[in-house]
Amino acid sequence: MTDPLDVAGLQRRLADFAAARNWQQYHTPKNLAAALSVEASELVEIFQWLTPEESARVMADPDTAHRVTDEVADVLAYLLQLCEVLGIDPLTALDAKIDRNERRFPI
Amino acid sequence: MTDPLDVAGLQRRLADFAAARNWQQYHTPKNLAAALSVEASELVEIFQWLTPEESARVMADPDTAHRVTDEVADVLAYLLQLCEVLGIDPLTALDAKIDRNERRFPI
Amino acid sequence: MTDPLDVAGLQRRLADFAAARNWQQYHTPKNLAAALSVEASELVEIFQWLTPEESARVMADPDTAHRVTDEVADVLAYLLQLCEVLGIDPLTALDAKIDRNERRFPI
Amino acid sequence: MTDPLDVAGLQRRLADFAAARNWQQYHTPKNLAAALSVEASELVEIFQWLTPEESARVMADPDTAHRVTDEVADVLAYLLQLCEVLGIDPLTALDAKIDRNERRFPI
Repeated sequence: MTDPLDVAGLQRRLADFAAARNWQQYHTPKNLAAALSVEASELVEIFQWLTPEESARVMADPDTAHRVTDEVADVLAYLLQLCEVLGIDPLTALDAKIDRNERRFPI
Repeated sequence: MTDPLDVAGLQRRLADFAAARNWQQYHTPKNLAAALSVEASELVEIFQWLTPEESARVMADPDTAHRVTDEVADVLAYLLQLCEVLGIDPLTALDAKIDRNERRFPI
Repeated sequence: MTDPLDVAGLQRRLADFAAARNWQQYHTPKNLAAALSVEASELVEIFQWLTPEESARVMADPDTAHRVTDEVADVLAYLLQLCEVLGIDPLTALDAKIDRNERRFPI
Repeated sequence: MTDPLDVAGLQRRLADFAAARNWQQYHTPKNLAAALSVEASELVEIFQWLTPEESARVMADPDTAHRVTDEVADVLAYLLQLCEVLGIDPLTALDAKIDRNERRFPI
């Protein structure tokens, strides 16, 4: 039986992965933010010439679905590593942001 | 007493927030991917003129720390909403990607 | 009477502008590429929630037209400065790329 | 003897290239802005793990120099096509922006 996945566990796996390859030296906040934006653009690239309707159907094609899932993973990997080196808890940050947005955009 | 934060709970809050403002109509995968990349670039903007060393100290300044945390939240918000509309589990996607990377980059 | 604008003249103005403010120290190719991508994302931000049809009409609104024109200028400014520090002639690079694309995508 | 390259001539080549392949249907301002940001990120990708000093030497390696030049061309191609569909003169836009910046950042 395996534990359910959680953010802290994935951050540990990512940190171990980087440490085992001596890659932490590259993981300045500046570089991780750049890498995050590059991966986000690779997601955009999948959608760039699609109509809104076509973009809503990307998961129907197994190859595209795999590609999208892979890029989502890359974005999350760099976001979690950036949070790790900066000492930010991403879920708490998002929870607080939704609170602020609820006050900023009242229904 | 509040439950600990988790990804599924935050996705529910984000979906409720968008539904209450009738914003789901804008949330095509194409638009959410673009919004994600825009927020990732707002993170890059904070670091763009900093040296690697300065970038490692951004959290020491409270205003910059708040700004970085806020942008991290925005990136995560759009990533989770993109995953929701596409039916992707982001933690499972990342776990599988780390597995693949361990085979691709052996120690 | 003023000369017609050209790329070399604008690169000279940009270089003088940066030199007069002692900003060249920040203009590493890495930083200029990041700044270019940040400005490109500010262009994307203008369009991110628009339908394709709405995006085709952005110049009809004077405020949006001004904003788009301003972001186009920022993208071009960083592209020309990047080319300057790297010794790339942007028009020759594009001309050669169109040649390659004509062979790669025959009619 | 060939004419010297200019922006208007390159825009004409790009427009002819797209028209011959029936690609103008994809060239909404929204899509071109996204494509521009994707190409800008491909430039960033080349520099993302480099130190500032390494980034200053990218043109010393012929393969990297070719890759950088190619991405610069792609960014310029989408910028010129975006300007074409929006009716923006990019050189005039940049000239006016430098004027504004000179007032905004006095020496």
